[in-house]
Amino acid sequence: MGTALLTDLYELTMAQSYLEHNKTGSAVFSIFPRTLPVKRNFLVAGGLETLIGQLEQFRFSGEDIVYLKSLQMFSDDFLSWLRDYRFSGTLSAIPEGSIVFQNEPLVQVEGPLPDVQILETLALNCIHFETVAASKAARIVSVSRGRSIVEFGFRRSHTPAAGIAAARAAYIAGFAGTSDLEAGKRYGIPVVGTMAHSYVMLFDTEDAAFRAYQSSFPERGLYLIDTYDTLACAETVIRLARDGVPAIGIRIDSGDIGALATQVRSMFDRAGLSHIKIFVSNNVDEYSIDRWLAGGVPIDSFGVGTHFITSSDAPYLDMVYKLVEYEGTPRYKTSPGKTTFPYRRQVVRHYRDGIMDHDEVIRMAGCEDDGLVEPYLRDGKLTRPLPSVEDIRKHCAHELTTLPGPFRTLAKQEYGVNVLP
Amino acid sequence: MGTALLTDLYELTMAQSYLEHNKTGSAVFSIFPRTLPVKRNFLVAGGLETLIGQLEQFRFSGEDIVYLKSLQMFSDDFLSWLRDYRFSGTLSAIPEGSIVFQNEPLVQVEGPLPDVQILETLALNCIHFETVAASKAARIVSVSRGRSIVEFGFRRSHTPAAGIAAARAAYIAGFAGTSDLEAGKRYGIPVVGTMAHSYVMLFDTEDAAFRAYQSSFPERGLYLIDTYDTLACAETVIRLARDGVPAIGIRIDSGDIGALATQVRSMFDRAGLSHIKIFVSNNVDEYSIDRWLAGGVPIDSFGVGTHFITSSDAPYLDMVYKLVEYEGTPRYKTSPGKTTFPYRRQVVRHYRDGIMDHDEVIRMAGCEDDGLVEPYLRDGKLTRPLPSVEDIRKHCAHELTTLPGPFRTLAKQEYGVNVLP
Repeated sequence: MGTALLTDLYELTMAQSYLEHNKTGSAVFSIFPRTLPVKRNFLVAGGLETLIGQLEQFRFSGEDIVYLKSLQMFSDDFLSWLRDYRFSGTLSAIPEGSIVFQNEPLVQVEGPLPDVQILETLALNCIHFETVAASKAARIVSVSRGRSIVEFGFRRSHTPAAGIAAARAAYIAGFAGTSDLEAGKRYGIPVVGTMAHSYVMLFDTEDAAFRAYQSSFPERGLYLIDTYDTLACAETVIRLARDGVPAIGIRIDSGDIGALATQVRSMFDRAGLSHIKIFVSNNVDEYSIDRWLAGGVPIDSFGVGTHFITSSDAPYLDMVYKLVEYEGTPRYKTSPGKTTFPYRRQVVRHYRDGIMDHDEVIRMAGCEDDGLVEPYLRDGKLTRPLPSVEDIRKHCAHELTTLPGPFRTLAKQEYGVNVLP
Repeated sequence: MGTALLTDLYELTMAQSYLEHNKTGSAVFSIFPRTLPVKRNFLVAGGLETLIGQLEQFRFSGEDIVYLKSLQMFSDDFLSWLRDYRFSGTLSAIPEGSIVFQNEPLVQVEGPLPDVQILETLALNCIHFETVAASKAARIVSVSRGRSIVEFGFRRSHTPAAGIAAARAAYIAGFAGTSDLEAGKRYGIPVVGTMAHSYVMLFDTEDAAFRAYQSSFPERGLYLIDTYDTLACAETVIRLARDGVPAIGIRIDSGDIGALATQVRSMFDRAGLSHIKIFVSNNVDEYSIDRWLAGGVPIDSFGVGTHFITSSDAPYLDMVYKLVEYEGTPRYKTSPGKTTFPYRRQVVRHYRDGIMDHDEVIRMAGCEDDGLVEPYLRDGKLTRPLPSVEDIRKHCAHELTTLPGPFRTLAKQEYGVNVLP
């Protein structure tokens, strides 16, 4: 099955019209965020591997052509052009896991105008969502002061495909693992999990539930202690530990988590069980993490679900796929609030003592490789191997160390990006 | 390929432990929203067809088993149980397209405990997202005063799969069409589209661009008029109409849309072109639609994209999959703010003069069919044909006519749902 119908109708009507009017010269389209959301100080580039995979499969199947013909809009010549379509253009991009800002070209695609016009919808879809997810994850990591963050959001992702893509983006941005098995299998991400309230409710007592879990998974006892009364259950965990049923950690998923974690920590410490880790979940996001850690709450690990997987405070970016050059001449529009910058571009980042200072977005005349933008596809083929998820993760971790300190807080910062004429 | 790894690790650890401790009695799990978001007066049930499709494919492949074995957590007995897993339980649900409220069981699944525990993650994923999307769409439709709404969001959906599912949900809730071709092909949804700014920019003048479009698609001229100067371009459209290049509509995608639409309408009307429709887009949502229509702005049709497809003001619901019965006895938890109601449930809706008045959520002792909840699967098999998308759309349209007037506005309303003991 091809992926070419994953697109908006108007891409195809425009392409037919371009072909009919001999607008088949070389065009450059650029994907960039026009602005950053109020609640983002930086973005992390995502989606490139997915996009390249989609371009390789970008085909109109026989069934697709039958469907398009049934719309009675397209000429036979155009349907035949679609049937033969293969992407054979050039693609350059800022590598996945890189930190990017407004007006920086995450991806630039070049080829005959109709060939690259019809990629708009799918290309934006791939780059947009994974950048949304990686950016939200990096923001969470940036306030977590080295604590471990695990991704628990699959049940509330916008389809399973989004859950898998977001788990990968989170791992790239520095999460320690995911609850989702398919993401674990596909990308080698460590998988994590504890138990649900239903498990505890299935046994007559919490004591019986934890003993049963321990007998099934020795040495993996991470007990959920808030089904009925959290502090009473913490006492049960202490009693069980003395009785040869050890805990490696406990999870708190409701109530006043800051206060409960502090009380439970002190109960365990008094009982000589300072090795038991405290894990919390329940609508956790960067705001609650920052508040707890700033207040000294002794939490070891955070399970982040819904707010990460939907990027609830910024579920979309003002990211576009814009024509910037046609047959070597610049293109831009002047709609209010939507002015765009023409030309193929390179991004040059300037550092001061190893920390990002400002970026310049310059015209790219030839194939300058002295900047963030790198070549990936020529004649539709990869010019280099794509990095592994582990390598992208390492790259992102390094990028985060070059971010100025204030950008790693929740206070709004504006990074200097100069787009040169 | 099976879909069974689209799940959280803890579902499988719990299932192994249940099997080892003979917790294999019949269990009932219920999917319901605990509360509604502040910006939703009602929800529209979605995702049932997707869920049933996923349950039919819920298999652990050989590759999946190899992966799970590599985690060194699971017993060979359990892996063998997974290899043979087929869903063979019972499923009842409130039909797709129905209006639902807090504490109402959209889906109830019954079967041996381990069999139904491992469905939690995927079942919630399917029901949650499509309910999010259908509910947002219905809210947009509810303030649109009969104007046509089309779905333009694919580029910013959280993966292509989410775009397709959301386009279907939008059509069910009353949108007139979608820009996404795959959704059109798969579900027979009318596909719509105009042209992008890049198209206009590719020609030397707007005049030339619109003439070219008209020659490619006679009688389909819906021109984008805001690339440079919206009012000047409206004059161009008038001149072209007199010159034998007709427009069926124009699209405005930037600027002060309310003011521009009013000016353009009056220019067209003065020119005797009152048949030209005004179509607007650009971050349109129910708030801008309601404001424009309340102010009498003459807009005929709205293209709704980003805010719909990400459900940006409520990208998730507080929806859960909870154990409510085990071996005929009630189960519930008492965590603060998370108290749940036990037992299998039926929903009885009470009307006054054909308008919803309040609902009662009652215990279901046998197979009461006198309520919103209907049977769908027995022994894992469909007991009835699923309705077509068109039928679900009709059902939803009827449901919306029974909603009290204030619920079809943007002012917060609370519907009465009595959960009986």
